[in-house]
Amino acid sequence: MLSLSKIKWLKSLGQKKYRKQEGLFIAEGDKIVKELLTSSMEVKGIYGTAPWAGDVSFPEGIVPEIITDKELERISSLNSPNQALAVVKIPATNTDSIELKNRFTLVLDNIQDPGNLGTIIRTADWFGICNIVCSPDTAELYNPKVIQATMGSFMRVNVFYTQLEDFFGGIPKDFPVMGALLEGENIFRTNLPTEGIIVTGNESRGISSPIKGFITNRLFIPRGAESTEQPESLNAAVATGIILSNLTNQG
Amino acid sequence: MLSLSKIKWLKSLGQKKYRKQEGLFIAEGDKIVKELLTSSMEVKGIYGTAPWAGDVSFPEGIVPEIITDKELERISSLNSPNQALAVVKIPATNTDSIELKNRFTLVLDNIQDPGNLGTIIRTADWFGICNIVCSPDTAELYNPKVIQATMGSFMRVNVFYTQLEDFFGGIPKDFPVMGALLEGENIFRTNLPTEGIIVTGNESRGISSPIKGFITNRLFIPRGAESTEQPESLNAAVATGIILSNLTNQG
Repeated sequence: MLSLSKIKWLKSLGQKKYRKQEGLFIAEGDKIVKELLTSSMEVKGIYGTAPWAGDVSFPEGIVPEIITDKELERISSLNSPNQALAVVKIPATNTDSIELKNRFTLVLDNIQDPGNLGTIIRTADWFGICNIVCSPDTAELYNPKVIQATMGSFMRVNVFYTQLEDFFGGIPKDFPVMGALLEGENIFRTNLPTEGIIVTGNESRGISSPIKGFITNRLFIPRGAESTEQPESLNAAVATGIILSNLTNQG
Repeated sequence: MLSLSKIKWLKSLGQKKYRKQEGLFIAEGDKIVKELLTSSMEVKGIYGTAPWAGDVSFPEGIVPEIITDKELERISSLNSPNQALAVVKIPATNTDSIELKNRFTLVLDNIQDPGNLGTIIRTADWFGICNIVCSPDTAELYNPKVIQATMGSFMRVNVFYTQLEDFFGGIPKDFPVMGALLEGENIFRTNLPTEGIIVTGNESRGISSPIKGFITNRLFIPRGAESTEQPESLNAAVATGIILSNLTNQG
């Protein structure tokens, strides 16, 4: 049985302040927790219902704490808690280690919505993007809503937070930096680079002015021929998906 | 000043049951409410703050009710209420009127998440799709979260609810019906039709078995070369956006 102080501690990890303090975050659900057990992430604790835990073979050193459905409900941040919850160590990151050559890297400039961030990470994973560099004001990766929306992709894509001006200051000269802008070139008609950075901007304000200055390839996702001029923009995750699909499926 | 009974009534429209009973729904925010005033939708009431209403020219017959920020907060379903709220008549729809030839039509098979549904409607609008046909178990269009996520596109895209088996029973023989399936053909390498239906399936279960039977063109959005086989799927709205962008930008 979970003690009240344990419940309180687990619930505190729902807040950024305590995640930062403890260096831990929570991931939930049967599939994600099972994947975590075989991933490179450091799992610090597993809380699962008896039928769930009975079906899982745990690696050495990991002993699940068996909890009731009621207890899971108390500690879960999901509307429909799903059998298990893991406490995981937040890995250290260092933007110096990001390899840019011969691949595509995503830069997020102030993505606010946790669901959008999670969906972008999931989409990046599908298209084989290893690294995502986020402005400090982008939503926090370890927010439970972000983790959930990644559908497990947080285990496979590296996400970094840094001042974007500093990041762009350190990239090779003439390295392609793409961004979707209304005045850009039709992504279906222009020659696309085979390596580079793709910048996705804020949901309502787009790419910020200082960051626009770093863009070398302005791209535009054309509206359909039947569309009016009224829709102003695409959702940030949808636009990112369309750009990545075109970049990774050339030739 | 809003009476308590008016506040109660407006808040009741947050629930599907009362929307259905009254035949009304609520749309919120400066931009959407202004757009509604010049749209073909029947606006039954406008509630706006004094500074907001002072800046808007209202069509004949529409007199806004001036409310305070506090009142707006009480009747709004948004986290950050934004100046105005409209009560709008739910338009009548009839699937018999859907023209299929020489265009693309979207079919949604049990899309559950209101944010996904809204994003799909917004994406369809960008690519010039006029009509979306939803299974009865798809999220409700007039859910405030759906309306908000469409970013105004609910005014330009027709959304219908009907039994999909009946709908497919009535389409011309040999008319292209596309669906994204893991065993489909690479969407970047196959010949795509220039008219047809695109089916998007449920977030976790995909396209349901009975509906799969109607698909004539099985498509697959290829993973990037660098991707592992681990990501199982794309978000439903992202996948729909990638398919629509390819269909409407051929040749």
